[in-house]
Amino acid sequence: MSNSGVKQILAHWKESVPNDRLAHLIRDVSRAQMRALQDRLDVHNVSFGHWSFLRILWVQDGLTQKTLSDLAGVMEPTTFSAMKAMEAQGLIERRHLPGNRKSIHVFLTNSGRQLEKKLVPLAEEVNAISVAGLTSAQVQTVRSSLMKVLANLANDGE
Amino acid sequence: MSNSGVKQILAHWKESVPNDRLAHLIRDVSRAQMRALQDRLDVHNVSFGHWSFLRILWVQDGLTQKTLSDLAGVMEPTTFSAMKAMEAQGLIERRHLPGNRKSIHVFLTNSGRQLEKKLVPLAEEVNAISVAGLTSAQVQTVRSSLMKVLANLANDGE
Repeated sequence: MSNSGVKQILAHWKESVPNDRLAHLIRDVSRAQMRALQDRLDVHNVSFGHWSFLRILWVQDGLTQKTLSDLAGVMEPTTFSAMKAMEAQGLIERRHLPGNRKSIHVFLTNSGRQLEKKLVPLAEEVNAISVAGLTSAQVQTVRSSLMKVLANLANDGE
Repeated sequence: MSNSGVKQILAHWKESVPNDRLAHLIRDVSRAQMRALQDRLDVHNVSFGHWSFLRILWVQDGLTQKTLSDLAGVMEPTTFSAMKAMEAQGLIERRHLPGNRKSIHVFLTNSGRQLEKKLVPLAEEVNAISVAGLTSAQVQTVRSSLMKVLANLANDGE
């Protein structure tokens, strides 16, 4: 999605669908934020997909590929090919834990860990641009409301 | 992403990253909503990708593939293959407008138009589940704040 794409989506919201579903608005905002971050990651030759996994591993290293897939919200084959590419780039290592030959765990290498200092500021910049002009009370309401939405959806389909 | 995936993401937010960036929370909520809608679209053999295009065409028919791509936030080849598949399914038609051989415009067929009555209630259901328990003032703050975020991002990179 280009920046002109974001402008067109904004115009579409203002003109055609100002009262459309909140779920739809959340999705469009999410895409616009992804585009803004991808533009910045491109400079460091990191894809948005790899960023999604790195972000999780920086918080919690040594996860299985299954858990990584669940947390990243992608299918296991997607995780598998990303891990192969990231291993080839020297960002992660895959190891069995002693006494367990079944699951493969993913560990950051030093170079994968060091990317955090370089890349997280890019996401912080996108976040700062996103919330510019909102009061902290508004941001707080958005956060707590969205946590409630996530909890509602976690109970869906039961 | 499975429903257990959404539960894991929720747990991750509560335990590991309660103060993580709003952009990240918006993305995770968006994915959870997509999953909930995809589960429902599956029953009608409609992919989330095709839904994204139908949704736009129901509001504004006769768009070019370029404009459709921008509004859906995808690359033109993605739109091109989706349009071929949707044409084969009898949901859309592609036509040149008289006097313009350059751009191809996409029009809904009757059967593509009729899907609206069947599929929109599914999205409305996901939306209703999402906002359950939020006050209308909270929903209003989320909406206006997210419109502001979208406007901020439309000016990014200039």
